[in-house]
Amino acid sequence: MPAITTENSPHGREFVILETPDERAKGWSVSSADLGLATAAFFTIRKQTLHGGRQEGVELIEVDQGVLKLTIIPTRGMSLYKVFSGEIELGWSSPVKEIVNPAYVELESRGGLGWLDGFNEFLVRCGVEWCGHPGMDNGRLLTLHGRVANIPATDVRVTIEEAPPHRIRVGGRVSEQTFKFADYELWAEVSTEPGKASFQISDTLTNRSDYEREFQLLYHANFGPPLLEQGARLVAAVKQVAPLDDYAGKSISTWSEYLGPTKNFGEHVFLLVPFTRPEGTTMVMLKNAAGERGVRVDYETKNLPYFSLWKNTDTMKEGYVTGLEPSTSYPYNRSVERKAGRVPKLAAGASKSFEVGYQILFTKAEVDAVEKEIVALQAQRPTTIESSAENMKAV
Amino acid sequence: MPAITTENSPHGREFVILETPDERAKGWSVSSADLGLATAAFFTIRKQTLHGGRQEGVELIEVDQGVLKLTIIPTRGMSLYKVFSGEIELGWSSPVKEIVNPAYVELESRGGLGWLDGFNEFLVRCGVEWCGHPGMDNGRLLTLHGRVANIPATDVRVTIEEAPPHRIRVGGRVSEQTFKFADYELWAEVSTEPGKASFQISDTLTNRSDYEREFQLLYHANFGPPLLEQGARLVAAVKQVAPLDDYAGKSISTWSEYLGPTKNFGEHVFLLVPFTRPEGTTMVMLKNAAGERGVRVDYETKNLPYFSLWKNTDTMKEGYVTGLEPSTSYPYNRSVERKAGRVPKLAAGASKSFEVGYQILFTKAEVDAVEKEIVALQAQRPTTIESSAENMKAV
Amino acid sequence: MPAITTENSPHGREFVILETPDERAKGWSVSSADLGLATAAFFTIRKQTLHGGRQEGVELIEVDQGVLKLTIIPTRGMSLYKVFSGEIELGWSSPVKEIVNPAYVELESRGGLGWLDGFNEFLVRCGVEWCGHPGMDNGRLLTLHGRVANIPATDVRVTIEEAPPHRIRVGGRVSEQTFKFADYELWAEVSTEPGKASFQISDTLTNRSDYEREFQLLYHANFGPPLLEQGARLVAAVKQVAPLDDYAGKSISTWSEYLGPTKNFGEHVFLLVPFTRPEGTTMVMLKNAAGERGVRVDYETKNLPYFSLWKNTDTMKEGYVTGLEPSTSYPYNRSVERKAGRVPKLAAGASKSFEVGYQILFTKAEVDAVEKEIVALQAQRPTTIESSAENMKAV
Repeated sequence: MPAITTENSPHGREFVILETPDERAKGWSVSSADLGLATAAFFTIRKQTLHGGRQEGVELIEVDQGVLKLTIIPTRGMSLYKVFSGEIELGWSSPVKEIVNPAYVELESRGGLGWLDGFNEFLVRCGVEWCGHPGMDNGRLLTLHGRVANIPATDVRVTIEEAPPHRIRVGGRVSEQTFKFADYELWAEVSTEPGKASFQISDTLTNRSDYEREFQLLYHANFGPPLLEQGARLVAAVKQVAPLDDYAGKSISTWSEYLGPTKNFGEHVFLLVPFTRPEGTTMVMLKNAAGERGVRVDYETKNLPYFSLWKNTDTMKEGYVTGLEPSTSYPYNRSVERKAGRVPKLAAGASKSFEVGYQILFTKAEVDAVEKEIVALQAQRPTTIESSAENMKAV
Repeated sequence: MPAITTENSPHGREFVILETPDERAKGWSVSSADLGLATAAFFTIRKQTLHGGRQEGVELIEVDQGVLKLTIIPTRGMSLYKVFSGEIELGWSSPVKEIVNPAYVELESRGGLGWLDGFNEFLVRCGVEWCGHPGMDNGRLLTLHGRVANIPATDVRVTIEEAPPHRIRVGGRVSEQTFKFADYELWAEVSTEPGKASFQISDTLTNRSDYEREFQLLYHANFGPPLLEQGARLVAAVKQVAPLDDYAGKSISTWSEYLGPTKNFGEHVFLLVPFTRPEGTTMVMLKNAAGERGVRVDYETKNLPYFSLWKNTDTMKEGYVTGLEPSTSYPYNRSVERKAGRVPKLAAGASKSFEVGYQILFTKAEVDAVEKEIVALQAQRPTTIESSAENMKAV
Repeated sequence: MPAITTENSPHGREFVILETPDERAKGWSVSSADLGLATAAFFTIRKQTLHGGRQEGVELIEVDQGVLKLTIIPTRGMSLYKVFSGEIELGWSSPVKEIVNPAYVELESRGGLGWLDGFNEFLVRCGVEWCGHPGMDNGRLLTLHGRVANIPATDVRVTIEEAPPHRIRVGGRVSEQTFKFADYELWAEVSTEPGKASFQISDTLTNRSDYEREFQLLYHANFGPPLLEQGARLVAAVKQVAPLDDYAGKSISTWSEYLGPTKNFGEHVFLLVPFTRPEGTTMVMLKNAAGERGVRVDYETKNLPYFSLWKNTDTMKEGYVTGLEPSTSYPYNRSVERKAGRVPKLAAGASKSFEVGYQILFTKAEVDAVEKEIVALQAQRPTTIESSAENMKAV
């Protein structure tokens, strides 16, 4: 339990701000000016603690780096609550309005749907012992999307790199540990360069156990307006696509296009296998109807070979939102994924890294350039459209 | 997250006291003297935070208005813990001694009976997505009496009306929100006039969803001694009464009379339909054996058409208590109530208000006057005594 | 909610340190010097509050009495986290690294195995409404090892006895209360004499209910290295021993001997009935391979007639640990124990006391002396080795 620590680590200036009884930590903040750094844009980083309701005790870290404002929730497994850039918001409006302290979440409720009591983040990690639909596996109930988003992080560090451009890193350790069952450590980190319209997830999952164990990880990034709107579109280099279920199957022909807010729409989920570059990366883009704004998502497919597209174009109040989800598995229950060969294992003591980058696109020129890149990646190869998820083989 | 706010709202002087990191809020208090108000009786209102055990972090608001002392628990959905007036206590002595932070309650425990781990309030709201007995409905476990009493309130406001008699209002918002399932907002308020022996519940439930949804609400007001004692009696204008089960059926002939603390009594529940005034109101009274003290309960039957009488005249230590419960439904599981046509719906965006008033009666004259009013409301019409709840039709 | 209280109680100087909004309590401490006491060794006692992760808000009391350092966790039912004496540690290294606030534990998870999410203590009490394996009993799920270790204590008191040798007592009240089901109060206390290598558990369980009720209590004391190692051994005067299951049955012939850390060992549990002295006490010893270090456990068998030996000699990372467990019952589900006649009852209002003492042995001479005592207690009577737990009759 150190007091607020300032370390000149190999990574730069580090602040450890959570595990302290120091009252000053409650309103901790730091800025480029405080540090005497000449960054491309002035930045400020501050921590606050929420009070009242189910938010009681929730810690937030807000990074304003000139172009982006990112809000990170250490108390909810380092989820990103929102990212703002001018009038563009990455995130969505969930019926769940509070940033809920996991102390008030019972994951077992409604037969394993308790995760939905706190779901409102822009970016929430699902995993790591399991993710996906609730249901029985090995005689025990797996709750929706696992536990990682409802585990408060420790060792939360704000690091400002010593060397220009003085990249800002906010990382924390999420320990998913149960005697006899789980000993995972997820280092969950987001970083961004002052003045840039992009940020990067750089996670490392370690199986600290002496036994090889299964794991699952899914990056559930959720977008509402202004990027999501009628006529918005997902652009991706797709090798294969299938509907999650019969309901989604009805709209398979328009899987990449979005409706406006639609009452009684429910949700359609599509399962994708992307084309990848030889170096094991791919990219997708969500662009608005006019093709003048968008978000580009770059990620490594080696450890995240699958991609799920969650289209929840329900009404605004119910949560008009789409999820772009690179992952180790599809969102079926782990028992289903295991049969399909889509549940990876991590050897005793082994680690895997997961990199996902997001960049906001503000102009038609930017959107067009990204689309061109994706078209090049598709390289005129056909997309196989499956009528059923049964045909999706393990990659 | 405002600091302590003093607003001159349309309603009067308002204090918003929970969502603040301001240390001063911990021991916030205000009095008629502080405000320079000439009220019928001197009042003080103070907030405190409990520490230790399962009480850790529980917020209380105590209103002492000269005649009544009311304790409100924002952390437990704005329940009223106790109301005192001299030697009269509204409330009871539960085996559960702590005012339990919902963070330490697991509603799913014992097959959905976790609510009993924190049950000790004078007045606890049951609902709002569901209330009643635990059990499966639509393939999911509904836990006893719903979630609302275990959701910490936000936007908690203490308002002192500008105009004499400077009524005091303590209200808070209880958000029962689950993505895909629930988007209820309950404004839960109690108000009282300085120096009067009465207080009023004025709640508004809003379905913020775009979909029509079922809801249930039950005002579980619980009385032990001194009002409850051998020979105490419920006085009500009753159209129809039935036992909840065979066990209660055995004592249907004495449904309105109370035994003293009785070992192995267990509990008897009776289901009532009251006679109502043309304007849609009714009243009941609990009076002590000598008819010299009592409590009068007035409420609107339009939105609370049913009434349950919970007689739990077990020993003092086990909880010698009776519940007077105006409600939208009887306390069976929602699946049973739905079949019986007793689960109301709330249209998208619609609100309903619920008014329940409580007045303490200190003398035989007061008790007699109230009894006279109730007899007049009965107007010599007969009470149909049903042998089984099967005969209770939806109102 | 008193502020920090200093009382000259019948027991000595008492400090009540948890139920207070007093900021000074956060870093409360007291020492022999502060009190002007001439003890055999200088002592300090301090309270701290943990922050970050699932530790948020956990209260610890650390007693350093010159020879022993004990850490008590009021927030986890007065469990003892660790006891240190020089290079000897009582305790073990669980994959669960945090001292978990029960607010973040869902006991119902994994079909009632949620207790494992926080299990890492040296000494954890299991009970009191039930303990043992998860499973259905009377139509309801009993979760592993009951609730008591996940209930924060209240009325936590540090007492320094007035009379020399100024014994230090740290006690707290753990209230396991559920309306209609449970009204237990466990006074959980550990005490130690400054400068001595021993400490004593002195608990009192009271059934505050008006009804006779079943209860179970098991003292789960867990030892890893340095006492546990290949060739370490349990020394006990044993009347009867049986394996918990067929898996343990395979190694019944070496039930008292330990392997080194062994991959895929899993766990072996042996059920014992000890020989007792006429006054109703017995003792066991865990000694290291060389017989030069050990721990002696003395306890009363009147209220703790059974003893379970948990051999979990898995790898170090998985938790290389053995549990020495005097108890009211064996660790089967309560439904099994009831059939076997091993679930005691407590009359209405009745209390039972439980005494378990631990002494660290630092030399071969000490170990040999204790072994001699145990051999004398066995008095050359044979140990009946049962092939199945079925043959273990109720004592």
